[in-house]
Amino acid sequence: MELTVAGLQAAGVPGDVEANRAQLRVAAAEAAATGAGLLITPELYLTGYDIGDQVRELARLDLAGTVRQIAREAGIAILAGLPEPAGERLHNTAILVDERGEVLLRYRKTHLFGDLDRRYFVPGDDLVVMAELHGVRIAVLICYDVEFPETVRAAAERGADLIAVPTAQMTPFAFVAEQVIRARAWENQVFVAYINHAGRERTLEYVGRSSIVAPSGDVLASAADGDHLLLATVDTDVVARARAANPYLADRRTDLYRRVRP
Amino acid sequence: MELTVAGLQAAGVPGDVEANRAQLRVAAAEAAATGAGLLITPELYLTGYDIGDQVRELARLDLAGTVRQIAREAGIAILAGLPEPAGERLHNTAILVDERGEVLLRYRKTHLFGDLDRRYFVPGDDLVVMAELHGVRIAVLICYDVEFPETVRAAAERGADLIAVPTAQMTPFAFVAEQVIRARAWENQVFVAYINHAGRERTLEYVGRSSIVAPSGDVLASAADGDHLLLATVDTDVVARARAANPYLADRRTDLYRRVRP
Repeated sequence: MELTVAGLQAAGVPGDVEANRAQLRVAAAEAAATGAGLLITPELYLTGYDIGDQVRELARLDLAGTVRQIAREAGIAILAGLPEPAGERLHNTAILVDERGEVLLRYRKTHLFGDLDRRYFVPGDDLVVMAELHGVRIAVLICYDVEFPETVRAAAERGADLIAVPTAQMTPFAFVAEQVIRARAWENQVFVAYINHAGRERTLEYVGRSSIVAPSGDVLASAADGDHLLLATVDTDVVARARAANPYLADRRTDLYRRVRP
Repeated sequence: MELTVAGLQAAGVPGDVEANRAQLRVAAAEAAATGAGLLITPELYLTGYDIGDQVRELARLDLAGTVRQIAREAGIAILAGLPEPAGERLHNTAILVDERGEVLLRYRKTHLFGDLDRRYFVPGDDLVVMAELHGVRIAVLICYDVEFPETVRAAAERGADLIAVPTAQMTPFAFVAEQVIRARAWENQVFVAYINHAGRERTLEYVGRSSIVAPSGDVLASAADGDHLLLATVDTDVVARARAANPYLADRRTDLYRRVRP
């Protein structure tokens, strides 16, 4: 099965949901027009990531409803980053809705990054959250999550074809975007779509450098800085052939691996 | 604590232990003269890797004794790859001897690579084998082992500063040498020394591309193809600072990680 994936690398307007919604609507129409079946946004794209206390207020809006509506209008599935109320605090969440606007999954970031995340968010406790879209099994991670090899491994073991990663990666971490993402794809023989913010937010300078990477580690689509719509096709046959040629999952010594702090 | 590490990337002479011994002796003297405290060879360096049934006969020689003698003579610790008898079959082993010729550890490859390994070798069952040399904690992996993130993670969790990897990496796997090794160093905030064969052996064309990589992912020393002595300094203070700046080990969600096939 094949699925063409679009990634919206964008600066957006931090704190301005209306502006981001408008940009998402344009991107969704453009992606659908090229034949893409899925559009992926950066982390917390609808509100902005580093927007201070404002994130608490914006999380009360019906952001999921916005995504569902845009998906329905454009006729394309969307994976969008947004803050989600969790009692007195928030989750850093991504929701996947299909082209009819139905919610297929909600993933809550499990690995919080420094004070930036911990000030507002509580972590999710589901490591692998996966849905099938047009025959392609998609697992979602958010930013820092993908830097831990355990997360992608767990998703690949559960049969993911594509790891979709909304992110907000800033300087000086270009190494992650350029090197680690390719290694994750290779070592698990999966596709990885890593979709980042561009531009600046308060104290952060984003590195851009979004990419969609094949199980071979080859970069199928990438951006430097600036707003950019990436496009690449995920093919489950490619995953199957890659896993036969490079049988990492089968060659693991699970008998020797243990939880690490004994 | 600091330890200067030398890596001998070499084609060697497949099946000719005398020739390889002579080359190792020269490299040990040269490495010691530059102030290095450890010399690392490629995988199965003393015999050659892809030498067919001859490996069974050569494994009966006192290869460990050869390494011990050269280390004593040159006054430098050596990590050397060699075949080791294991009942009717063999282990694909690396031994670490100190500059007095004492054996500090023996590591037996735990992840066998395809028919090439499985024809002659049985796997070891100790995932992390580690020794301290001049205050630097060194864990050993061999070739395919390091391609599994679980192996380096386990060693880092146990406190390794340096992952020393004798390897025999052939085309078309340059991606491992160029991308995966840097990701392993970064995601665990450890030094990695990946020391490969050069040249050809029977059906194999080696990719060379040995490297010594810092916890930052920066390549401290590297080679293209051909014989080459790499040099770089491992510093435990660098490891400590790197782990404070990028606290992957502390930020892991070990509560969520499980053995993967439930």
